[in-house]
Amino acid sequence: MAGTVAMVEVWRGGMAESRHRGHAVICDAAGAVVESWGDPGAVILPRSSVKMIQALPLVESGAADAAGLGPEDLALACASHEGAPVHVTRVAAWLQGLGLSEADLRCGAQPTRDPAERKRMLIAGEAPCQLHNNCSGKHAGFLTLARHLGAGPDYVDPGHPVQRAVRAAFEDVTGQASPRFGIDGCSAPNFATTMHGLARAMAFFAGARADAGDARSRAAARLVEAMRTFPELVAGEGRACTELMRAMGGSVAVKTGAEGVFVAILPDRGLGVAVKIEDGATRASEAAITGLLVRLGVLDPAHPAARRRLGDPIRNWRGIETGEIRLAPGFA
Amino acid sequence: MAGTVAMVEVWRGGMAESRHRGHAVICDAAGAVVESWGDPGAVILPRSSVKMIQALPLVESGAADAAGLGPEDLALACASHEGAPVHVTRVAAWLQGLGLSEADLRCGAQPTRDPAERKRMLIAGEAPCQLHNNCSGKHAGFLTLARHLGAGPDYVDPGHPVQRAVRAAFEDVTGQASPRFGIDGCSAPNFATTMHGLARAMAFFAGARADAGDARSRAAARLVEAMRTFPELVAGEGRACTELMRAMGGSVAVKTGAEGVFVAILPDRGLGVAVKIEDGATRASEAAITGLLVRLGVLDPAHPAARRRLGDPIRNWRGIETGEIRLAPGFA
Repeated sequence: MAGTVAMVEVWRGGMAESRHRGHAVICDAAGAVVESWGDPGAVILPRSSVKMIQALPLVESGAADAAGLGPEDLALACASHEGAPVHVTRVAAWLQGLGLSEADLRCGAQPTRDPAERKRMLIAGEAPCQLHNNCSGKHAGFLTLARHLGAGPDYVDPGHPVQRAVRAAFEDVTGQASPRFGIDGCSAPNFATTMHGLARAMAFFAGARADAGDARSRAAARLVEAMRTFPELVAGEGRACTELMRAMGGSVAVKTGAEGVFVAILPDRGLGVAVKIEDGATRASEAAITGLLVRLGVLDPAHPAARRRLGDPIRNWRGIETGEIRLAPGFA
Repeated sequence: MAGTVAMVEVWRGGMAESRHRGHAVICDAAGAVVESWGDPGAVILPRSSVKMIQALPLVESGAADAAGLGPEDLALACASHEGAPVHVTRVAAWLQGLGLSEADLRCGAQPTRDPAERKRMLIAGEAPCQLHNNCSGKHAGFLTLARHLGAGPDYVDPGHPVQRAVRAAFEDVTGQASPRFGIDGCSAPNFATTMHGLARAMAFFAGARADAGDARSRAAARLVEAMRTFPELVAGEGRACTELMRAMGGSVAVKTGAEGVFVAILPDRGLGVAVKIEDGATRASEAAITGLLVRLGVLDPAHPAARRRLGDPIRNWRGIETGEIRLAPGFA
């Protein structure tokens, strides 16, 4: 991962105390690089930033319609949710509708990140279950597709028909063969691609149309529409994806991924954006995507959701301003 | 902060998914650079890694003895503790012995990071106070010195006699004038120095002797001895400083600092070590100092405390191995 550039700085005491490097690519609907920082050819694991790609086979196969899924379910299929009651109860109902249960999931139990629910569960002595896993919606989507295909229960196996379909869709929209995969936090395979491939895939989603002749384009348009319509289901209160999508009035879909990945889909502009912070820091990927969205003219830099990621002072335990997060000179 | 080198990599799926760059310097007791990676001249904010320097005036002024402080108190003065009952009750008793209370602290209230205490306080509806702040021992030390000097209550003001004494000691042991300072998370000034300056200061502590003619050397030796004797007071159960000092049988003192800083003091070898990760990541500073301590022959790489920072597989929510943290080629 050579060829990174400085993208985000953390200032304190009049100096850059820490610095984050990375790559960023903006692609147009034709798949061409409009602008880039770092190396567009760098191979990365996109992690949860590609959940909308992983949901393509669910929709284009007809599995989603056959199961009667609504846009809320599709938003959850694309989500890294915080395991709040609104997410957990919806995924539970989705599974129940399939005649399945939490035990059929393969994502593993993860503590809820919703503060009120966390406190309630702690006091009640309730253990988290797989429904609380931030990927439980994606996995409900995998189960829905597996059932539709008449395939077996181990849907996270890279050789399972569900993952083979995900890989085919992934390679199609990134425009590249995936050189390898890693096992994600939720146990599903996560296919590698280049920065250019990831931005191109997001540009494909940006150019997707509900009335397209191509089933993949129609599926992509439905998923983007679901994300933009239900930003609270894609992440949760206080989370960057939810707050930034709301701040842009639903005109842009954005999605975070672990280890410093962030993507944006701009349907009105036909643009796709991909960010990877070399060191994996979320504070930096959030600041970088905020800076790029401001640069592209779709996010007001004075909006509180933007300022919380880029602009607001950092305060210490006594509320004293100690520094701030800035874009590095030359980036965005 | 140019001239960083790759120091730590996070692997997944057979590739380096993320990479951390930084600087590292090993100094001998004469202050010479024995070995370095990155730029020894890089200016950094050392954050909590220099609490033993900030405690020098407390000891060498005679304030610690006048207040009857024991080695446990001195360990707490050098600590970034997790606010467990063992830390909170000791600092409270220390303040009470001075005729002071929690309200005299200037570090701000911080939630405890001790899981059991956190749960207990959540259920009881108890709010954290300044005693839980990871710096409360350092601040008790500042208050002790302020009282000894007959100085005013605002001991975190950079012009206060306590901070003037800290700055003088800091510049002496780093061997450099400090070019600037930042306000730390605990509201105290944190003086900048170079990587070489920080490593030289740690080498001074490594060479300090309890029977030295110089009061500063005697004070440094007492502080190192306190840290090595009470590792659980310097951080807490499960924390890197505590676990690594125990793993080395108390032969080496180590201390973490925010934003990717870690230092080590090797009295038997007369060496000081300083690490700064450019992006501020704790996982990387812990892995890097572990690698350096192994390289220096003072830490067994197979010890669980070492392996938890460098060597053990990373597992996901289902316990499946997904990757590992490695040293970058060419580092340590």
